[in-house]
Amino acid sequence: MTALPFTSALIDDAELAPLFAPAAELRAMLAFETALAAAQAEAGMISGAAASAIARACAEFTPDEAALRAGLFKDGVLGPGFVAALRKTLPVEHQKALHLGATSQDVTDTALTIRLKPVLSILAARLTALIAALQALGAAQGAVQLMGQTRMQAALPILARDKIVSWEQPLHRHLARLAELAPRLLVIQLGGPVGNRAELGAAADAVAAGLAARLGLGDAQCWHTARDNIVAFGALLAMIAGALGKIGQDAAILAQSENGALKIEGGGASSAMAHKVNPVTAEHLVALARFAGGLAGTLNQALVHENERSGAAWTLEWLVLPQLVCATGAALQAGLGLIARLHFIDRAKPGDDRA
Amino acid sequence: MTALPFTSALIDDAELAPLFAPAAELRAMLAFETALAAAQAEAGMISGAAASAIARACAEFTPDEAALRAGLFKDGVLGPGFVAALRKTLPVEHQKALHLGATSQDVTDTALTIRLKPVLSILAARLTALIAALQALGAAQGAVQLMGQTRMQAALPILARDKIVSWEQPLHRHLARLAELAPRLLVIQLGGPVGNRAELGAAADAVAAGLAARLGLGDAQCWHTARDNIVAFGALLAMIAGALGKIGQDAAILAQSENGALKIEGGGASSAMAHKVNPVTAEHLVALARFAGGLAGTLNQALVHENERSGAAWTLEWLVLPQLVCATGAALQAGLGLIARLHFIDRAKPGDDRA
Amino acid sequence: MTALPFTSALIDDAELAPLFAPAAELRAMLAFETALAAAQAEAGMISGAAASAIARACAEFTPDEAALRAGLFKDGVLGPGFVAALRKTLPVEHQKALHLGATSQDVTDTALTIRLKPVLSILAARLTALIAALQALGAAQGAVQLMGQTRMQAALPILARDKIVSWEQPLHRHLARLAELAPRLLVIQLGGPVGNRAELGAAADAVAAGLAARLGLGDAQCWHTARDNIVAFGALLAMIAGALGKIGQDAAILAQSENGALKIEGGGASSAMAHKVNPVTAEHLVALARFAGGLAGTLNQALVHENERSGAAWTLEWLVLPQLVCATGAALQAGLGLIARLHFIDRAKPGDDRA
Amino acid sequence: MTALPFTSALIDDAELAPLFAPAAELRAMLAFETALAAAQAEAGMISGAAASAIARACAEFTPDEAALRAGLFKDGVLGPGFVAALRKTLPVEHQKALHLGATSQDVTDTALTIRLKPVLSILAARLTALIAALQALGAAQGAVQLMGQTRMQAALPILARDKIVSWEQPLHRHLARLAELAPRLLVIQLGGPVGNRAELGAAADAVAAGLAARLGLGDAQCWHTARDNIVAFGALLAMIAGALGKIGQDAAILAQSENGALKIEGGGASSAMAHKVNPVTAEHLVALARFAGGLAGTLNQALVHENERSGAAWTLEWLVLPQLVCATGAALQAGLGLIARLHFIDRAKPGDDRA
Repeated sequence: MTALPFTSALIDDAELAPLFAPAAELRAMLAFETALAAAQAEAGMISGAAASAIARACAEFTPDEAALRAGLFKDGVLGPGFVAALRKTLPVEHQKALHLGATSQDVTDTALTIRLKPVLSILAARLTALIAALQALGAAQGAVQLMGQTRMQAALPILARDKIVSWEQPLHRHLARLAELAPRLLVIQLGGPVGNRAELGAAADAVAAGLAARLGLGDAQCWHTARDNIVAFGALLAMIAGALGKIGQDAAILAQSENGALKIEGGGASSAMAHKVNPVTAEHLVALARFAGGLAGTLNQALVHENERSGAAWTLEWLVLPQLVCATGAALQAGLGLIARLHFIDRAKPGDDRA
Repeated sequence: MTALPFTSALIDDAELAPLFAPAAELRAMLAFETALAAAQAEAGMISGAAASAIARACAEFTPDEAALRAGLFKDGVLGPGFVAALRKTLPVEHQKALHLGATSQDVTDTALTIRLKPVLSILAARLTALIAALQALGAAQGAVQLMGQTRMQAALPILARDKIVSWEQPLHRHLARLAELAPRLLVIQLGGPVGNRAELGAAADAVAAGLAARLGLGDAQCWHTARDNIVAFGALLAMIAGALGKIGQDAAILAQSENGALKIEGGGASSAMAHKVNPVTAEHLVALARFAGGLAGTLNQALVHENERSGAAWTLEWLVLPQLVCATGAALQAGLGLIARLHFIDRAKPGDDRA
Repeated sequence: MTALPFTSALIDDAELAPLFAPAAELRAMLAFETALAAAQAEAGMISGAAASAIARACAEFTPDEAALRAGLFKDGVLGPGFVAALRKTLPVEHQKALHLGATSQDVTDTALTIRLKPVLSILAARLTALIAALQALGAAQGAVQLMGQTRMQAALPILARDKIVSWEQPLHRHLARLAELAPRLLVIQLGGPVGNRAELGAAADAVAAGLAARLGLGDAQCWHTARDNIVAFGALLAMIAGALGKIGQDAAILAQSENGALKIEGGGASSAMAHKVNPVTAEHLVALARFAGGLAGTLNQALVHENERSGAAWTLEWLVLPQLVCATGAALQAGLGLIARLHFIDRAKPGDDRA
Repeated sequence: MTALPFTSALIDDAELAPLFAPAAELRAMLAFETALAAAQAEAGMISGAAASAIARACAEFTPDEAALRAGLFKDGVLGPGFVAALRKTLPVEHQKALHLGATSQDVTDTALTIRLKPVLSILAARLTALIAALQALGAAQGAVQLMGQTRMQAALPILARDKIVSWEQPLHRHLARLAELAPRLLVIQLGGPVGNRAELGAAADAVAAGLAARLGLGDAQCWHTARDNIVAFGALLAMIAGALGKIGQDAAILAQSENGALKIEGGGASSAMAHKVNPVTAEHLVALARFAGGLAGTLNQALVHENERSGAAWTLEWLVLPQLVCATGAALQAGLGLIARLHFIDRAKPGDDRA
């Protein structure tokens, strides 16, 4: 939407959102074309002069964002408009060498994985920071006794440490999952019009290897129609958001007035009740978990990708993935903020409940 | 997100998106406060002078959007920051009269239904236009013979009219559903801090009636925690998007090269294959249907709204509803565009397949 | 599954599940064929003798369930196997008159709506009973004071009545929605092979009217490919389950040991902690609400129903709808049971918290 | 449901469904109690005589399934009723030794992972068989030329091999994912009432190790409230079903009458159109993919698992996971059947289209 609702701020993310912005996408698309040309020159498919000209053109390209956006509606993908506009800036003798043997999906998908690489790094860094924050919280407040609650009923006493450890454990698994899926996800896309690299001829494998090396991505067979790596990433995002939702849910319950086992510093105000301190961030984590969980479920529908390219299934990915990344990223940031503001009330310590 | 992905254009909507923008939300919030004060003056709860001062303050209020947005993260809702900022602009003697007996949810939810009123009108107008477009299409091309396809296999001949009628029929039901849900959905929210209007005292019903009348909304008991009308609206949006997805799916199949029963004028280009004419809009309709269907499913999770106000469930609505409205609106616009470009090929007419 | 998990009992429903069992489906299919033949005889399409023979054959038909089930895998629908088996039991001269001009979808969809009629009655009766139970609860215990909780924090005092009324209000709207959708949903399906009733010739409308009248269903144009009424029903089911999930969530929170505002008689035991009384039914309501909400979201995907009949989209309905009905029905039953066991603790009454 | 709809056969699975049946669940629960007692005897927590008595009691236990099922509604979990019934069969002096320091969730979750072990083996075997079937198909028919279709339009020629390889590639990744998640998923659950193993005292780790070794599962810290491994498994199931849905969608399109690039032997009949051969299995694969995708999305909602045990979130898992496993298993079986019946039409070979 041109003017976003106030509430879209809740899934904005100062580091992640810019990676999905037009400028970043175009930079990645230009990186693809530059690297493809270089790899093709190395493989003898095009001349070195052509590759140099393409590199220069990419470096100097000034996109017309509105025209490119119009291409989405007309062509269903930025590729055709982007390639045509870029080609026009090339000397005539090198125009054919641009995007040679590639197709819009190659540049679009690779431009995505180029940007998912920093996305994964950012997510891993935040997970690591969250683990550290939880360990610090455990070290500082872990000895406080809480009443364990099962099925919403007081059960037996636990230590705050027990709960904090239960929050921390899945985060380690999420880091492991990130590490496992990264080499599958962070790969080039190169298939040509119908995915069989026919237009690249005998040089196909060499070009793919050269492209991957230049972009810092893994080499891979064409995955135009096999979208499992994208969907697996979406599923992991929902799991990460879910882990934070569980923390938020626990925090909101423990901080209930009737429970009073936890104080969340800097809680939210009410427009009508001055005495209230609302567990706003904790609630946001629950909302983001349910939102991300729903988006990841919707993404599954993109697996039914008909024939050699489905405009419908692919478009569905585009509508879901960026906001799923940003919602999860926002949850991680909110979670980090929340952890820093948690104060488990030590009932054995006089006055602590007024801390 | 601050800088939206290119692809967010697919769910942008020039008429609907502005209704969810901060400016429109604030206008609606100000309208609520103005109307509330007027109704309370009429009911004798506040003075006429106070109501006039509030009306003036609302007319002149210059919001600090960044500060209000920060309130979302701190208070979980715009209300407290908005009311505090507006109150400061009032003469001291009238400050107490502002937002009297109301709570943030009252102004937030009512500010939503104020804007859903034009949303429903726009949707109804587009459904009506789509029906008219389909009837015109049927009148112009309905006699063309097609091969009916059941379970993806040629079945028996039908007329284009048969298919067009099958596209049109659910749209009439959607109009009926819009008309049925409108009086339930387009109502004020007025409950006060815990939903029982206690702070409004004996004047409560009169104030509610006066508020509703001034805002052109229906009167209703407080529905702070009963979100079924919102969810029912989301479900209808998914059904409307689904009806368009069905049209898109049919169009894409009929326009297949191997089928050739339909030509879609102005199709999309390929960056690699000059001969192709892609059914881009038809595919977008399918993608939007699946996207809206998923969002509406996620919205169901907001029904489990704990106690007298759930920050988590309510926030989930905010993340889902605006984009669900806009995606459906975008689908209606795209559908209107598609219908105008459909040309059923009359095989009995020599040369028509080259039309 | 041949042997269902223990937990499937949670979505079993003694009244509703049998309506989806093979015996009930077959009875409804036979009712369709009988009524169709009678309507066709009346319209002069077949002889009275044929209609009588068909009625007799239907009355005496002994289905081979295993063979019919095999037809699902082979033909994708029960119709072909069912009609062939039934036809064999007819005198040769009347065999052609059976299922004349109809198709498998006609008998399958109509056999569904025949059974949805009692489903809707049962749901309405339970909603009505739930409203009565809540009103009785309000009359008996409504004056007990509770602490209202907003955003999981103590807000201001309310009466139990306020809460009970907030539970009751959406149920009235659900009854209204049921009444609104019933005439759209409870209609015959009659379209013939490709949905245009071509095989019924000039008698088509008369046959449809006669069929509808005999089955106690509404008359309607063919809706083979427009599945919005099914999806709208699914959405309503999720809303009903959601209303009960909200009651369950509230009950579980109020009954927390730390809160103690509510006692749920006959709560669940723990295998490890003898002192616990778990709010099991309340939790079930939350689980069923989230489950039904997810199923209804999935059902939206069935709206993209390609061409004159989609085996894929239609099959998806079959996988979702029966369990969605039963889960909602189970939630209504569980909700009725829960309401009867709620005891709001009157703190002003000495000893009531030990009630 | 007591009597399942005909259509439930589509997600039945002769190998997988029995693993979720009551008998299998009880066997796994008894295996847990036997192994726990043996491990506790070894660790000196209980006597060898007690462990032997428990092993005998477990071997001889005759469950009252109806009573256990009733426990689901009363206690929310089978554990309390199961343990009480089993305990009664023990000599009084050994009764305390049963289930010592464990809780219902320990036996329930471990009884699940005990059965997920063969589930994973079966899925891996089917994926391997599917890969082999695709490779055989490629070897036999891979050289047939097809018209590649992108965005539903003829693009450029490909070989059947290209398409078959695109179907096969994600299956290898799914096998890798299964192998990655198995050691995380196939672990014991042992936490005691509130998850901190307090009741097991100093012997806790030794008991856990002994339990894991005896059950052939991995050792793991308590994961009562961290449900990511279950959700990750659900996500993989949806991805597997999605891979099959893509095969089904391709097959249905290629087999279209207008396309005729593929013949599916043994297709389905129509009750009205004798000439039709419907791609029923292909459509089922699409339906199962969308169904599984929806279920996996719903499962994400179970991640918000409040405090030390959420009856609501846990119950949601139970409603979703068994049918998600069975639907995916059914899709794998259906896919294997479909692959065996595919015949790509070689247009260069006279008469092949009548094969």
